[in-house]
Amino acid sequence: MMTVDAIVNDYKAMIDSQLATLFDQVTMNLKIKEAMAYSLNVGGKRVRPLLMLLTAEAFGTSTEKVMPVCLALECVHTYSLIHDDLPAMDDDDYRRGQLTNHKKFDEATAILAGDALLTYGFQLISEAELLTDEEKVHAMKRLSQVSGPGGMVGGQMYDLTYENKTISLEQLEEVHDLKTGQLLIYALEMGAYLSGQSDHVIQALKRAAKAIGLTFQIQDDILDVIGDEQVLGKKVGSDELNEKSTYPKLLGLSGAKNEKNIFVEETKKQLALAGIMDAPLRDYVLKLSQREH
Amino acid sequence: MMTVDAIVNDYKAMIDSQLATLFDQVTMNLKIKEAMAYSLNVGGKRVRPLLMLLTAEAFGTSTEKVMPVCLALECVHTYSLIHDDLPAMDDDDYRRGQLTNHKKFDEATAILAGDALLTYGFQLISEAELLTDEEKVHAMKRLSQVSGPGGMVGGQMYDLTYENKTISLEQLEEVHDLKTGQLLIYALEMGAYLSGQSDHVIQALKRAAKAIGLTFQIQDDILDVIGDEQVLGKKVGSDELNEKSTYPKLLGLSGAKNEKNIFVEETKKQLALAGIMDAPLRDYVLKLSQREH
Repeated sequence: MMTVDAIVNDYKAMIDSQLATLFDQVTMNLKIKEAMAYSLNVGGKRVRPLLMLLTAEAFGTSTEKVMPVCLALECVHTYSLIHDDLPAMDDDDYRRGQLTNHKKFDEATAILAGDALLTYGFQLISEAELLTDEEKVHAMKRLSQVSGPGGMVGGQMYDLTYENKTISLEQLEEVHDLKTGQLLIYALEMGAYLSGQSDHVIQALKRAAKAIGLTFQIQDDILDVIGDEQVLGKKVGSDELNEKSTYPKLLGLSGAKNEKNIFVEETKKQLALAGIMDAPLRDYVLKLSQREH
Repeated sequence: MMTVDAIVNDYKAMIDSQLATLFDQVTMNLKIKEAMAYSLNVGGKRVRPLLMLLTAEAFGTSTEKVMPVCLALECVHTYSLIHDDLPAMDDDDYRRGQLTNHKKFDEATAILAGDALLTYGFQLISEAELLTDEEKVHAMKRLSQVSGPGGMVGGQMYDLTYENKTISLEQLEEVHDLKTGQLLIYALEMGAYLSGQSDHVIQALKRAAKAIGLTFQIQDDILDVIGDEQVLGKKVGSDELNEKSTYPKLLGLSGAKNEKNIFVEETKKQLALAGIMDAPLRDYVLKLSQREH
């Protein structure tokens, strides 16, 4: 039997290779193609598409059916990173050790590449061959809801509004839920929906995904306090420096660790409610929540 | 019988009122809502939704059915204007006599408001009550194709690439087709598609829309040379100043006028092929091609 790591690595290799050739057969302006492909292929853990594939796998659904929606989700995630890195936003020169899109190209190109990736996400779903019209409509409706003004973009707006302000734990959770949680919810939700699962199962997985998102976030916050710069590959202490509201800041380090454990337990509980007890999905999620980089 | 002007004014009032209340019942971050609504309601001729409604009207299709797609198209058009005006792009402080989005708010907000409007366009179609799943999928597929990297965004990229360069008439036409033509094509195409028209009719209307787009563009270029600043409400001669490639520059003023007339004749011919001889759509289009502002 394959180990979870081997399964995850196999799926990740599939996702990477699909993303690497995504625009090969598509006619478009060469510069926009280059800029889109650059950020899409600069690396990354591919957490979102992996979560969707692993959820589909837990219900015996083929990778081929789900893949276009996975790729669409990664396009939307990547667009959000490109725009987030812009000088007017977080003003980052590097991401994952590589130049950010506007540094590699220029600001105008980065704005357009982000716009193009967002739009192309919808195109991928609308052109998917193995989905019914009903499935396509639902996948695009939910994608617009989780990524638009009522989802991720709304979260980024809250994030800007709250900059350098002291916020409550409730507000912190709302920002994280919108900014990063909603796309994670989409990953598990779609894996189950495209597998024809009941609303009961889908709702449990959405609650699991919400807990997973908060677990990841608290882990991120904790690593920024106690992480090893060598292992992380980035400077620690930047949250403190930027006066960012974080879980350790609001709850203390041990309070944050407790809070994380609560969400890990919630994740296990909701996955079990969805009938997922020993699938690779569960192992992958639990492993990520213990990661050190 | 109502005059064409009265019909168009009625439709425009409907579109304006729908856009003015578009987010009233929607839960989202208040600042992103304000920024989206600002640019959506700053005015404008509403050419794209009007063309779609008038096309639907020519085939006897209800306004109610087509309206969500009209509003989606205006959202996408508005997002493109917001991003186009950004400092990294055209760097415009005013549009239609009002502050541009990043001047009224700030750059980060304008980037997010554009992102949100683009995404919301897809949400509007996916949530439309009077469309079948098949119609929604086709409307979203075409919207992504005409506005994404193979359409409008690709055109903007060409536009940046060609800045301060001498280009051929062929290249000029390709830029205009992608940058502005594709959304106009979408307007007429969807008006006919949602009316259940044959592919023969839809193709004729797409050719008509392409000719309409080029007619408008040449008219724009001509007005920038010979227009009356008082009537236009903006400075003339800016194309010359910015060394932009235009029809008068490539063909001379009378050559440009001739070219425009060729496209007006093409428009009439294609509308006739689609069975549209004396509908308000035809009068509206021909009137716009003679406009002085």
